[in-house]
Amino acid sequence: MPAKSMEDLKALCKRRGFIYQTNEIYGGLQGLFDYGPLGVELKNNLKLAWWRSMVHERDDVEGLDAAILTNPNVLKQSGHEDTFIDPLVDCRSCNSRWRADHLKKSTCPSCGSKDLTEPRPFNTMFKTNVGPIEDGTSFAYLRPETAQQTFTNFKNIVDSTSKSLPFGIAQIGKAFRNEITPRNFIFRVREFEQMELEFFVEPGTDEEWHQIWLQERLNWWSKQGIPEKKLDVYDVPRKELAHYSKSTIDIMYKFPHGTEELEGVANRTDFDLGSHTKNQSELNIAAKVIKNSSSNAKLAIQDRETKSWTVPYVIEPAAGVDRGVLAVLNEAYTVQKLKDGKERIVLSFKPHLSPIKAAVIPLKKNDKEMVETASSLKKKLQNLNLGRVLLENSGNIGKNYRRHDEAGTPVCITVDFQTSEDKTVTIRERDSMEQERIHLKEVPDHLKEKLK
Amino acid sequence: MPAKSMEDLKALCKRRGFIYQTNEIYGGLQGLFDYGPLGVELKNNLKLAWWRSMVHERDDVEGLDAAILTNPNVLKQSGHEDTFIDPLVDCRSCNSRWRADHLKKSTCPSCGSKDLTEPRPFNTMFKTNVGPIEDGTSFAYLRPETAQQTFTNFKNIVDSTSKSLPFGIAQIGKAFRNEITPRNFIFRVREFEQMELEFFVEPGTDEEWHQIWLQERLNWWSKQGIPEKKLDVYDVPRKELAHYSKSTIDIMYKFPHGTEELEGVANRTDFDLGSHTKNQSELNIAAKVIKNSSSNAKLAIQDRETKSWTVPYVIEPAAGVDRGVLAVLNEAYTVQKLKDGKERIVLSFKPHLSPIKAAVIPLKKNDKEMVETASSLKKKLQNLNLGRVLLENSGNIGKNYRRHDEAGTPVCITVDFQTSEDKTVTIRERDSMEQERIHLKEVPDHLKEKLK
Repeated sequence: MPAKSMEDLKALCKRRGFIYQTNEIYGGLQGLFDYGPLGVELKNNLKLAWWRSMVHERDDVEGLDAAILTNPNVLKQSGHEDTFIDPLVDCRSCNSRWRADHLKKSTCPSCGSKDLTEPRPFNTMFKTNVGPIEDGTSFAYLRPETAQQTFTNFKNIVDSTSKSLPFGIAQIGKAFRNEITPRNFIFRVREFEQMELEFFVEPGTDEEWHQIWLQERLNWWSKQGIPEKKLDVYDVPRKELAHYSKSTIDIMYKFPHGTEELEGVANRTDFDLGSHTKNQSELNIAAKVIKNSSSNAKLAIQDRETKSWTVPYVIEPAAGVDRGVLAVLNEAYTVQKLKDGKERIVLSFKPHLSPIKAAVIPLKKNDKEMVETASSLKKKLQNLNLGRVLLENSGNIGKNYRRHDEAGTPVCITVDFQTSEDKTVTIRERDSMEQERIHLKEVPDHLKEKLK
Repeated sequence: MPAKSMEDLKALCKRRGFIYQTNEIYGGLQGLFDYGPLGVELKNNLKLAWWRSMVHERDDVEGLDAAILTNPNVLKQSGHEDTFIDPLVDCRSCNSRWRADHLKKSTCPSCGSKDLTEPRPFNTMFKTNVGPIEDGTSFAYLRPETAQQTFTNFKNIVDSTSKSLPFGIAQIGKAFRNEITPRNFIFRVREFEQMELEFFVEPGTDEEWHQIWLQERLNWWSKQGIPEKKLDVYDVPRKELAHYSKSTIDIMYKFPHGTEELEGVANRTDFDLGSHTKNQSELNIAAKVIKNSSSNAKLAIQDRETKSWTVPYVIEPAAGVDRGVLAVLNEAYTVQKLKDGKERIVLSFKPHLSPIKAAVIPLKKNDKEMVETASSLKKKLQNLNLGRVLLENSGNIGKNYRRHDEAGTPVCITVDFQTSEDKTVTIRERDSMEQERIHLKEVPDHLKEKLK
């Protein structure tokens, strides 16, 4: 049962420490957010789930973590300098600026005036001066996607790992886009994180791999708590395709503000390696690429028998980490009517995504014996390496249960007066709210079972 | 036995896929590097070890992951706009530019001329325009350290977690400095990652906590394979202290290029919260701070009984991730003379840092039965969640052992002809190179034991 509104979600995120507006004490900075104590754990858990499924569990994918600052040559050859553009309009009445294709009516959303300029191109890449010379000759872009450094490292990675086709390179990292009108909480922001796989295949096998990866990705989201029935698959019409794409399938989710893209799975053809390779004319490149006279590397794979060179095609499943967090939060958000007529909010995360795996609570704050028992139990559970286990020494058990319902903690464990007598503790389960007493010795196995 | 030279380390890093120069195919971009398949795992493992020790194992530290783009107000109030400055000199002969305090002689390192300008201040923060108006009125800095967003989020985090003093906020993330002359591989770079803890304490307890954190950090580095005897402790002289510091102790390591700072542990006093708080004049701030008329939040802690407000002091252990990776690589790098007169290079990482925990190798490439057995063993070991386990189906066992010595893989497991007969495999240990046959069933426990 998703949240009723984005405002509900935002309020919970701030109250419990998932997500704050950045630099809020100075009035913020539009389209930028900070992940608080619970948010950073949730985000890290989602990224880890992706990395495990993409890199650790496969033998045909390698990882990469490249720099954000990018040589302008890379983004000239990739086509971003020419095409990474949004249509910008000015309101002549109040001087505000808007993205033309996001306006629902041709009136200014700020003052209502219809006196808008014609749309003109605005490149959404951030630039910064690099080095001590400030005359504009030496600058870098903040990468608009992680993908380009994957392509420029293609030869390095093939050389160090001896990979042969098909194989992939996975990367998680920040990317930046100077959105004209950032909006919808962490959905459309200026600084965001991506999880991108570039999967290199033999030309001719690309359409088959495109379908395989689409299904893989739907399965993966389902494991993160977003079942396939909540996802739409949108085959992007030809005229809306990005300049590099032969075909793109978007995985759409119903966010609180509307149905939008959660992940895109694109068939990028041989456009990328073809754009960044030297000796383009010898390589029989199918895509239309910009002439490259700067690259010093041949980005192709040689057949061991025929000795001929092939520029691989690329299938790219590209997911937004922040959009993923938003979707996971929204799906987990549940308001329940309780028997006593009250309500509770609970985040029913899949346990592997929960920011805190278990809270250990001494019933009486600062009671020496209870705190010692709780503290030693926390340490034992923490050492299982299942994720964060928290000792809550604040004494109000009801308040702690409410807090951990809203944090999505699967299990609360209470140490009380009886514990010193019979070595039992109370285990309270998040979703059912059922409580049972078990022996201290049984707690580690109980937790492992719950988190499976 | 550390590496003989930075060149040895760099060569290994490129050959095996730890670290590449960024955008190398376009001639690179100075002071920027990409982490390849082994490098990203090593770096992630080091960050995870820090996060576990700082956040998960403690109950007095919370995590944070804030935005890189920073409101200029933050860095005005923090003093960075005025003081984050390096002395820049020009060579009048060849027009190259240098950092004055890094020149060993007052001659140009490029052309040898003595005709250099007087040093002038150069602010090393990167700036970028934000939003669709490009007249310079709307810009952000790329944060020069992660710490500032920790301070600006102080009230948010106290409100969501009800923490009381002493407590800390930990953050790992990228920071950027426009170094005049980046150098020494990943030691002095323009884009880097930090692991910073800001630990908030009662004024008067700061000096004691400073010592406690210094010892904690020395212990932690020792667990990462850098024993305390390899580390020097440098009490930074008063005149070299940063503008916010009452006292800073640097943890120094002998890198291949010389002894330099690996981590700094600073007593930042009440400078930071005092700089970013509203109502400064009511708060009895000890540090000399810039007047703040923009902040909308009181960054102080109220005593529950006396109702009086205190601006906490900050102890900051701040480590460089990249410098940490460099130190760990250097300490692990070992050249061994073997009995047959040959040499091998082996990276003797602590097992929790090894990029690959185990390689499973079918003795004969593409042998159906061997590959199936190896593949199912890989899956079983991967599911233990100890880190990456790799199936190596390339057939040359000697080459694989050499490769995994240089990758620092603790254990290689070979499936051979005998495996189908008696279900045994060969386990080869990285450091001793000893081999033993054990039953397939015993492999998971054997690996768990090795990685303890």
